[in-house]
Amino acid sequence: MKKVTIIGATGFGGIGLIELILRHPNFALNQIIAQKDVAKPLSHLYPHLKGFCDKRIESLNDLDYKSTDLVFMSTPDQVGMNLISKFYNLKIPVIDFSGDFRFKKISDYKIYAKNKGMKPGHSSKDLLKNTVYGLPEKYKKQIKKSLIIGNPGCFAIGMILALLPAIEADFITSDTIICNGITGVSGAGKNSGEKNLYPQRYENINSYKEGKHQHLVEVEQIINSLSSKTKKILFIPHLAPISRGIFNTIIVDFKPNLTLKRITDYYRDYYKNDPFVILSQESLDSNSVRGSNRCALNLKIDKRTKKLIITSVIDNLMKGQAGNALQNANLVFDFEETLGLNNPPVYP
Amino acid sequence: MKKVTIIGATGFGGIGLIELILRHPNFALNQIIAQKDVAKPLSHLYPHLKGFCDKRIESLNDLDYKSTDLVFMSTPDQVGMNLISKFYNLKIPVIDFSGDFRFKKISDYKIYAKNKGMKPGHSSKDLLKNTVYGLPEKYKKQIKKSLIIGNPGCFAIGMILALLPAIEADFITSDTIICNGITGVSGAGKNSGEKNLYPQRYENINSYKEGKHQHLVEVEQIINSLSSKTKKILFIPHLAPISRGIFNTIIVDFKPNLTLKRITDYYRDYYKNDPFVILSQESLDSNSVRGSNRCALNLKIDKRTKKLIITSVIDNLMKGQAGNALQNANLVFDFEETLGLNNPPVYP
Amino acid sequence: MKKVTIIGATGFGGIGLIELILRHPNFALNQIIAQKDVAKPLSHLYPHLKGFCDKRIESLNDLDYKSTDLVFMSTPDQVGMNLISKFYNLKIPVIDFSGDFRFKKISDYKIYAKNKGMKPGHSSKDLLKNTVYGLPEKYKKQIKKSLIIGNPGCFAIGMILALLPAIEADFITSDTIICNGITGVSGAGKNSGEKNLYPQRYENINSYKEGKHQHLVEVEQIINSLSSKTKKILFIPHLAPISRGIFNTIIVDFKPNLTLKRITDYYRDYYKNDPFVILSQESLDSNSVRGSNRCALNLKIDKRTKKLIITSVIDNLMKGQAGNALQNANLVFDFEETLGLNNPPVYP
Amino acid sequence: MKKVTIIGATGFGGIGLIELILRHPNFALNQIIAQKDVAKPLSHLYPHLKGFCDKRIESLNDLDYKSTDLVFMSTPDQVGMNLISKFYNLKIPVIDFSGDFRFKKISDYKIYAKNKGMKPGHSSKDLLKNTVYGLPEKYKKQIKKSLIIGNPGCFAIGMILALLPAIEADFITSDTIICNGITGVSGAGKNSGEKNLYPQRYENINSYKEGKHQHLVEVEQIINSLSSKTKKILFIPHLAPISRGIFNTIIVDFKPNLTLKRITDYYRDYYKNDPFVILSQESLDSNSVRGSNRCALNLKIDKRTKKLIITSVIDNLMKGQAGNALQNANLVFDFEETLGLNNPPVYP
Repeated sequence: MKKVTIIGATGFGGIGLIELILRHPNFALNQIIAQKDVAKPLSHLYPHLKGFCDKRIESLNDLDYKSTDLVFMSTPDQVGMNLISKFYNLKIPVIDFSGDFRFKKISDYKIYAKNKGMKPGHSSKDLLKNTVYGLPEKYKKQIKKSLIIGNPGCFAIGMILALLPAIEADFITSDTIICNGITGVSGAGKNSGEKNLYPQRYENINSYKEGKHQHLVEVEQIINSLSSKTKKILFIPHLAPISRGIFNTIIVDFKPNLTLKRITDYYRDYYKNDPFVILSQESLDSNSVRGSNRCALNLKIDKRTKKLIITSVIDNLMKGQAGNALQNANLVFDFEETLGLNNPPVYP
Repeated sequence: MKKVTIIGATGFGGIGLIELILRHPNFALNQIIAQKDVAKPLSHLYPHLKGFCDKRIESLNDLDYKSTDLVFMSTPDQVGMNLISKFYNLKIPVIDFSGDFRFKKISDYKIYAKNKGMKPGHSSKDLLKNTVYGLPEKYKKQIKKSLIIGNPGCFAIGMILALLPAIEADFITSDTIICNGITGVSGAGKNSGEKNLYPQRYENINSYKEGKHQHLVEVEQIINSLSSKTKKILFIPHLAPISRGIFNTIIVDFKPNLTLKRITDYYRDYYKNDPFVILSQESLDSNSVRGSNRCALNLKIDKRTKKLIITSVIDNLMKGQAGNALQNANLVFDFEETLGLNNPPVYP
Repeated sequence: MKKVTIIGATGFGGIGLIELILRHPNFALNQIIAQKDVAKPLSHLYPHLKGFCDKRIESLNDLDYKSTDLVFMSTPDQVGMNLISKFYNLKIPVIDFSGDFRFKKISDYKIYAKNKGMKPGHSSKDLLKNTVYGLPEKYKKQIKKSLIIGNPGCFAIGMILALLPAIEADFITSDTIICNGITGVSGAGKNSGEKNLYPQRYENINSYKEGKHQHLVEVEQIINSLSSKTKKILFIPHLAPISRGIFNTIIVDFKPNLTLKRITDYYRDYYKNDPFVILSQESLDSNSVRGSNRCALNLKIDKRTKKLIITSVIDNLMKGQAGNALQNANLVFDFEETLGLNNPPVYP
Repeated sequence: MKKVTIIGATGFGGIGLIELILRHPNFALNQIIAQKDVAKPLSHLYPHLKGFCDKRIESLNDLDYKSTDLVFMSTPDQVGMNLISKFYNLKIPVIDFSGDFRFKKISDYKIYAKNKGMKPGHSSKDLLKNTVYGLPEKYKKQIKKSLIIGNPGCFAIGMILALLPAIEADFITSDTIICNGITGVSGAGKNSGEKNLYPQRYENINSYKEGKHQHLVEVEQIINSLSSKTKKILFIPHLAPISRGIFNTIIVDFKPNLTLKRITDYYRDYYKNDPFVILSQESLDSNSVRGSNRCALNLKIDKRTKKLIITSVIDNLMKGQAGNALQNANLVFDFEETLGLNNPPVYP
């Protein structure tokens, strides 16, 4: 039984992780740490966990380094960077939910920070070279050996999984990859303010940060490390009145000699050892992955315009956050990748 | 491993049951039977189950009696009554989701049928004496020995669990018990028609069947079998734009010498061996039980008007249907009552 | 053309009022005043009003008393009480949306304030005797002559309209009137915080302030001023995931000699001159009044339990707030009561 | 006062039209005709119209040609084509909501019909040359003189208004115009079946008919009649859980010498006489046009990828259907284009 500590336990990301760990056969909750509500039982804030997790919330000062085998930092940007060195020196592996450890190059981090409206400084930039981008479908080996795992952004993971095979096989001919994303509201977290109150959010679709979303840099960083030619992503995020779910629609030009069958076969082969990536023959809907750690992909060719259309769906709080983090944690301890993550979800 | 067959597998009730059985350590799906979509893999209709249940839907004619240890009939009213005798003769236990086997007395069934707008005839009325009302919190012993279990109505189970201790302790002095219920739309099933389309249902609250809902008879049947004095329920159901959840608000007069503490203590003691009944000190919300098999109860006394207010919440597709049915199934085979049912739910 | 000024113009109540005034033939917007966003055009905050109201938000200090024929104070509790005296002395009529002027007796106000968790002091208590409860269906004459109109609480108006005829005709025999209310989220306003974010509110029904909601005192104050015998209300509010709408379900005992026909006839006659009160023969749904200033009522007798069931629905931002306020304003200037308020609403 | 008759009055399109006509100063409802519910008062089906429209539904056989100045056919595809000739011969202008009269060329109609899964035959193809595409912003003059107006498809109108200026000014250099659309559920109408029930639709985003939506042909027909070079549209529609609203996101390459300012100025000038087209400097949200006849547009240039991003929002039941139809009707009778259509909408 490995003992895990969660810092930032009371946000949507933290709570999702706790729900998963409670079901996991090989992980046990050691400490749950948050800034607010210290000393309250977690189930007081989240009554659905009554009897499942009545553990009290602790303060960061109470962190017991000795009794912890793994730390999840479900904290906002620029928190983890100030906590990481001690864990690193003690060789306690850390999985961080923010953008702090998603970039090897400080120049990429700076763009990320700028797009998020944050100061560009990074207080642990020397450690960036020791981090790994926490995408198990690509960096399994590195994750197993790493002490600092940057869990990807929710939009980014859906985009990257949709693009990886095409990029590595060099199928895409366009310089610009167009992606329209639609996300649910939970992605904005519990502090997202007035604009996400029920009356303002129901019956509303909007776009935002067109071409400037912070997850863009992540995708370009990964894609371009694997591509024969530098690609740019034009990403247009939209917000829709659902709680969970991300639907990405990607449009690219592709090499003229390719057929849908060949591309599909390649994708199937590429992901044949990745239990959470599902290739669907039908058009996707987000509730087919709600509550699961899956990413479903669909490929189509529009013959009239000769474009390849790749769609992907994930649950932003699962494969887009806590589920993927737990998948990483399984790898860190050489557990089966799907351990504690492979339950049929609940519908409708 | 016990093999279960589900008849009526493709409605919300059937699918909920399948999701649960797939997670259950001691039950395996034997056959999934439905009228429509025969020969299609279940995951074609419900893509969230791809890889979890790709079993093909079979027709009732294909039912293999020999290989079945237990049958769930997730079928509409007046289907099970025509299928039951063969199972009964073969001593295969059956858990039925409709009203067919909820009543010992044919006179009660007739009222139920009338309130639902159905013909009052019952084609297996001789078997009614051998049925048990599938409420584990009250009839555990009988359920363990019975071959025909009538799984309760969703509204009924929330009301009965809220009332049982007060009725048995004879706390309630009013002849009429007032209950306002609010239910989600999934309770109406997949054939509920135009009035439940998204545009007609979002932003809408309505009442219906005021004083005439079919679950009323169930509650009165159970309550009055335990009460010192005949009670009537005035039940007013409302429909709200949520998918899952039932919120019942019950108002009664109570014996003047009772305190909230004494009533609460009695409830706590009454349910001390019932893992799915949760007593909450706070006002309830339906999403604290969403996705779980729990029924949460709250007790309050309004000092100004000297009324006892009992609220209960359940997930209508879990404790109100498939979850409770599986709890019954656990009892039939002497498994731990909570087996396969005690996972922390997913929020938000 | 009468010139109106709105203080607290940028909340849901203020904006609703502005939408109505923009359509009104006899009222013109004079000043729109708020604490935040001063100097911004209103349409910057509410883009649906671009071209309809690009007027800039002004600060309270900019209030031009001379150019104002009428003031709406769409402000929180305990703001209006500090502003009222100057308007009163200048004989400018004021319609206030808070509880500040809903009570003639300071003792009633104190209970209201306590139930809302506020300090019980009232800084203009000498003016209370000059106020009128802004319920046009009952106090039309007084409203026409009054300078201080306390616009009723949203839950209260639905309850009072449901009860008035029965109370005045002395139909009700129970001492306690039971009311279950279900409200939409917009009633909580734009500052209602984290618990009303989309992810926490969708799929959720909860009860709150059982027996202690602040609107209770309003209802009892009005009802008991008209009743032969003091009544108490047991009011249990619930919150459901809709933006607009209040559904009240009232249950009482009634004089045994009464028939549904007689009660209905009496209600119809009572409201024959009230264009916004609609008697429906069918069970109600909240979206039949969404966007309108109507209150729909339905009466039923449950023969089994001999109870009278009265249901009412309103749009909480219209008849429950801005619409009713405008109806009061029409009366103040002797305009037709329905002026600017009688448009068919938009569905679905 | 012009007398209008609505055929197909009880769908979402018909009811939206009735709501608008009831507010219109120069139109009066003559007959409301539908297949089902004949002889029932309309307000029986739509209680929000009680007192506004209690007129009884009539059968097509009851149509009184003499008393009708204008006919709206809010009917499904391939109904209007069988009714048109008599109206045409009697010189009664018709505005049809289906695709029957949106195409001048039978070859375009055949593609439309194929994409919708219908038979390609058109029973009034000789009349197609006399039709006009009912887009007031482009074909005002022709609409004023035409007897057969094909009201555009909802997705099409949002796309065309977003593209018209750029096409006519020849700003766009790409051969393929990429458009991602997100629509609300009401667009699917009242017969859209099980998949749009509340439980299946809430919390769900899906794509459908990728590259094959029937509105595509409409857009290409109009665009290419005005373009210097043939363009193709790659249109990917998505469905989101809102009732009303369409959000289109269009991405194209543009001539390198153009600045955002120049494009914006051109758009502003192009639409300077079109009261319902609003140019917004901010990113769009669909609820800023909900309940209004507006189409809001936003233009952005992504400097990194050198793409022009054009977004448009409409209310699919207003500018996307009934509102636009009424705008056409105003033109037919030389009324002010905005008559009866220029009210501030209701929020939230």
